[in-house]
Amino acid sequence: MGLNLAQKIIKEHLISGEMVEGKEIAIRIDQTLTQDSTGTMAYLQFEAMGIPRVKTKKSVAYIDHNTLQAGFENADDHKYIQTVAAKHGVYFSRPGNGICHQVHLERFGVPGMTLLGSDSHTPTAGGLGMLAIGAGGLDVAVAMGGGPYYLTMPKVCKVTLKGKLRPWVSAKDIILEVLRIMTVKGGVGKIIEYAGDGIKSLTVPERATITNMGAELGATTSIFPSDEVTREFLKAQGREEDWVELKPDPDAVYDEELEIDLSSLEPLAAKPHSPDNVEKVKDIGKIKVDQVAIGSCTNSSFMDMMKVAKILKGKTVHPDVSLVIAPGSKQVLTMIAKNGALADMVAAGARILESACGPCIGMGQAPKTNAVSLRTFNRNFEGRSGTKSAQVYLVSPEVAAVSAITGVLTNPEEFGEAPQVEMPSEFIADDNMIVPPAPEGEEVEVVRGPNIKPFPLNKELENEIGGKILIKVEDNITTDHIMPSNAKLLPYRSNVPYLAEYCLTPCDPDFPKRAKENNGGFIVGGSNYGQGSSREHAALAPLQLGVKGVIAKSFARIHMANLINSGIIPMTFENEGDYDEIDMGDEIVIENIIDQIKSGSRLIVKNKTKNKDIPVNVSLSERQVEIILAGGLINYTKKQSK
Amino acid sequence: MGLNLAQKIIKEHLISGEMVEGKEIAIRIDQTLTQDSTGTMAYLQFEAMGIPRVKTKKSVAYIDHNTLQAGFENADDHKYIQTVAAKHGVYFSRPGNGICHQVHLERFGVPGMTLLGSDSHTPTAGGLGMLAIGAGGLDVAVAMGGGPYYLTMPKVCKVTLKGKLRPWVSAKDIILEVLRIMTVKGGVGKIIEYAGDGIKSLTVPERATITNMGAELGATTSIFPSDEVTREFLKAQGREEDWVELKPDPDAVYDEELEIDLSSLEPLAAKPHSPDNVEKVKDIGKIKVDQVAIGSCTNSSFMDMMKVAKILKGKTVHPDVSLVIAPGSKQVLTMIAKNGALADMVAAGARILESACGPCIGMGQAPKTNAVSLRTFNRNFEGRSGTKSAQVYLVSPEVAAVSAITGVLTNPEEFGEAPQVEMPSEFIADDNMIVPPAPEGEEVEVVRGPNIKPFPLNKELENEIGGKILIKVEDNITTDHIMPSNAKLLPYRSNVPYLAEYCLTPCDPDFPKRAKENNGGFIVGGSNYGQGSSREHAALAPLQLGVKGVIAKSFARIHMANLINSGIIPMTFENEGDYDEIDMGDEIVIENIIDQIKSGSRLIVKNKTKNKDIPVNVSLSERQVEIILAGGLINYTKKQSK
Repeated sequence: MGLNLAQKIIKEHLISGEMVEGKEIAIRIDQTLTQDSTGTMAYLQFEAMGIPRVKTKKSVAYIDHNTLQAGFENADDHKYIQTVAAKHGVYFSRPGNGICHQVHLERFGVPGMTLLGSDSHTPTAGGLGMLAIGAGGLDVAVAMGGGPYYLTMPKVCKVTLKGKLRPWVSAKDIILEVLRIMTVKGGVGKIIEYAGDGIKSLTVPERATITNMGAELGATTSIFPSDEVTREFLKAQGREEDWVELKPDPDAVYDEELEIDLSSLEPLAAKPHSPDNVEKVKDIGKIKVDQVAIGSCTNSSFMDMMKVAKILKGKTVHPDVSLVIAPGSKQVLTMIAKNGALADMVAAGARILESACGPCIGMGQAPKTNAVSLRTFNRNFEGRSGTKSAQVYLVSPEVAAVSAITGVLTNPEEFGEAPQVEMPSEFIADDNMIVPPAPEGEEVEVVRGPNIKPFPLNKELENEIGGKILIKVEDNITTDHIMPSNAKLLPYRSNVPYLAEYCLTPCDPDFPKRAKENNGGFIVGGSNYGQGSSREHAALAPLQLGVKGVIAKSFARIHMANLINSGIIPMTFENEGDYDEIDMGDEIVIENIIDQIKSGSRLIVKNKTKNKDIPVNVSLSERQVEIILAGGLINYTKKQSK
Repeated sequence: MGLNLAQKIIKEHLISGEMVEGKEIAIRIDQTLTQDSTGTMAYLQFEAMGIPRVKTKKSVAYIDHNTLQAGFENADDHKYIQTVAAKHGVYFSRPGNGICHQVHLERFGVPGMTLLGSDSHTPTAGGLGMLAIGAGGLDVAVAMGGGPYYLTMPKVCKVTLKGKLRPWVSAKDIILEVLRIMTVKGGVGKIIEYAGDGIKSLTVPERATITNMGAELGATTSIFPSDEVTREFLKAQGREEDWVELKPDPDAVYDEELEIDLSSLEPLAAKPHSPDNVEKVKDIGKIKVDQVAIGSCTNSSFMDMMKVAKILKGKTVHPDVSLVIAPGSKQVLTMIAKNGALADMVAAGARILESACGPCIGMGQAPKTNAVSLRTFNRNFEGRSGTKSAQVYLVSPEVAAVSAITGVLTNPEEFGEAPQVEMPSEFIADDNMIVPPAPEGEEVEVVRGPNIKPFPLNKELENEIGGKILIKVEDNITTDHIMPSNAKLLPYRSNVPYLAEYCLTPCDPDFPKRAKENNGGFIVGGSNYGQGSSREHAALAPLQLGVKGVIAKSFARIHMANLINSGIIPMTFENEGDYDEIDMGDEIVIENIIDQIKSGSRLIVKNKTKNKDIPVNVSLSERQVEIILAGGLINYTKKQSK
């Protein structure tokens, strides 16, 4: 039986486990990337492992998130990342060099390799035929140290693209169509593999737009074959030697299949407040637009910018619209500054922002109250723009640019002839903003600003643990409840002690104080505890406050993994009704815990206050048992590497 | 006796008063400008006057301060300003169109006219031969309504420039030399008038760099003659018809004189933390640099950018330096995007920011802890960069660009040949980002976001006022104490009720609460009460809280004017020792106040708690008496226009 492309790359990198859907496998990681908002913590964790140089083929640290720099914290983080990268063998992409995924595609991605990145849009590199997965910072730190990446073997879903896009319809419309069909939950536990004749007409940056937004499907990753189009792109980047041909076996088998006729697609938009709330632009109608934002790791390539510039040339942005454009990388910006396209944008009235994530992550350009904002980005969750009442529509660069001129959401097919942009045969490839690591890392002094604090490290599990129930919360508590993230707290991602002062405060402002007064204790949760963003700070902050375990009706998958990585025991009620038998302030104890966890059996939580035994389950793989016993993944990794 | 240039323009615009130094005069205002951080309040106040259309020759509303837009408040303010401008006859310069002073110089400034702007660097237009003065928003609102601007007739100080600048020495070095000689207090109560053969070799943008930083001398304004150089500039801007020749009479008399030999100047820097702490770059030495920032209303012209681009071309910004560049206007950005200069900057590794004030006002790009930051800006006060521990040096674009490459503060004379930049014979003058006012203003609906709140309006003075002493503060209380301004509070400049919650809280966190509980009352201050920034919010916030009067040992001039404009009575102790006879919580009453103020005599403050009479003085012009009686300038202006 033949292998599909995803399976081929996994097989090539398999370290342990069976390639059977649903089973845990471990794969070797060739490359890693970090960005700055997750990167500081990843490198602090890497440092804690005590490994002098990264063991990957290439690791790159990007600065693209916190580039507004409202206080000293961001620049301090940049300097820390620059120096820690130099010391440990990591390439450093300086602020201004661009968005990690765009730059990685241009300068580092290699077909057939694995890439682990501490950013959920890491799958962008799948456009080049990489197996590129987003993960928590600690997972990336482990991979930098040469450790494998553990994941559940996903299903592989084949999406066959046939035919050719019509004028004014673009790659963004393809992924919006996939989102419309599959929904934001449709990709969970799957790799999306693109195939079919239609892919031949898609350039690598267009493919990357599609794999990028695979993240919004909830997919593990998305991938395109590596073909002649890939070779042309790499050649134009001066990296033809990185090219290899990659395709599925002729008799490859897929778990699911889907077909899209590109020629039938029309310009689409994802309406507020979900990327899968997709409708044809012409059916939504000519709603008045207040803001248009073009850029982000989804749509900021040279090709995207050239299309926008051609549309804007000789026109003026509608007086009621604020048009902001953030080109994706220094390469893109240099090229459009050189060929006059940027001048056309500026002449038309575009506001040019630094090459960075910017408004896509709520870093600036919050629209006005009740604004309609068209964005070429990948997420339109309520409030993400910085304006709670804003209505954000996700669209292609073409729809964005045309609507910026007309002042209303506009089907570009009405606008005249579509701009023709040729893929350049040669990109301007100057890596002078990428600092290679120091040859002799030992000599580099790592610079730590006052906001960069040691992060909490657990210790080996004791055989009996006990303490108070510090808080009891309802169902569906998100990581935003556990560790709020906003413009005020984002600069403190490298300061867990400070962040911990806000831990669970949306549920109970006194939680941090109470946790500290009691020297830690336990959390009781309802079902789906820890849903939402993958941020590991939602485990680190409780750890900082001495939380030893969480007893819930059920856990969200990634948060549970983060708890385990921190050495905090995730327990589920054997009988959900026992949720009512335990309250804030109760004193509990769990005895003989090590043997019980090792034998995989249930634990007994003795509620001393209520004088009642509560059976709970701990569902861990063998490896996870070892992690919990070691007191978290870092301690476990240190032990392993001895 | 002949007149100097400043006197000629004042005479031409004199409405009342005698042109005798130290006496109050009133002048007619031809043009006004506002920026967005002071503008919202200015337009709210203009609206309160009930005048349908502005009565100036030209009024322009710029958006250049709050362009990061971390929350909805900024975009709401922009929209409010756009709509209120359209309604009342004001031109609107859209966000992205550039820094007010740069754009005004390019597109609107007219030699010989008067310009009043709600920004302290309004004197920039003096480079064109305008009499351009910075003022509070309310003064600008009154001027828009056709009212005169009142000021104390200043001294006129002649600065004769002779000779010619050497290569690598620039206009910035001239004004730094003036600051070195005169200090930051040296210009108080003066107009600085430039003369001499040396001015012929200075282009208008270079002259504007000099008049811009006249603000740092504390000068009322600075001015250059309007000559052939001015004509060439206006011609290149397509505005030759705006040119008139302007020069002092041959027998003009000046109050002070100063001479600078341009050929003797060397590259200079203002060291931390004052613009007059000036030393030669070569004498400061090669200190390591962390950040270089180029732009601001001082140094963001086309000529400045071209020099920087030529220096950067083919080089790479030092790996330890973050170089940020914000071109001053859409005109500048379009031109350098068209001619390849911007591509050279980006290729070298510069981070390009939007054409706006940006880091100069602490809006982003805060450097790292303890950073050395070289900036082409106009102020280097401690903490203004957003990083309290940063060391900011003010330098020319040449010194900035060269040092960005070397990584250390560098005398450019060591660097090779100085870049040669020719003044263009034609600028790209496209005003498509300037929205003219609506022809039929009545039909425009003014859009007010939820953060735009009515500002407090006083009422006619009653003949007896009384209440509690709400707070008693020490000497040298600044407007930063009275109304703190920081990144957290700046978005609330159009929400006085919210700001009032922070009024005087650096002195006493309970002040706002106490003031409200007592329905207002009085403030007791030491000497120099209200020094520092001119922000009128330091009077509006106390008014919001019901403050009726301030009794102090002495007042800072502008804050006293702002108190009067708000209808709050500024009183000084006749005997400074009485400061000790009055305490927080004391109940006071002032009887028969109207007649006493009218007759210019002292008032008696009865301290009922201590059973003691305290004599105080109220030093007001006749006009100011009327303003206090009316309950502030707006009420007074309304009365006048009836």
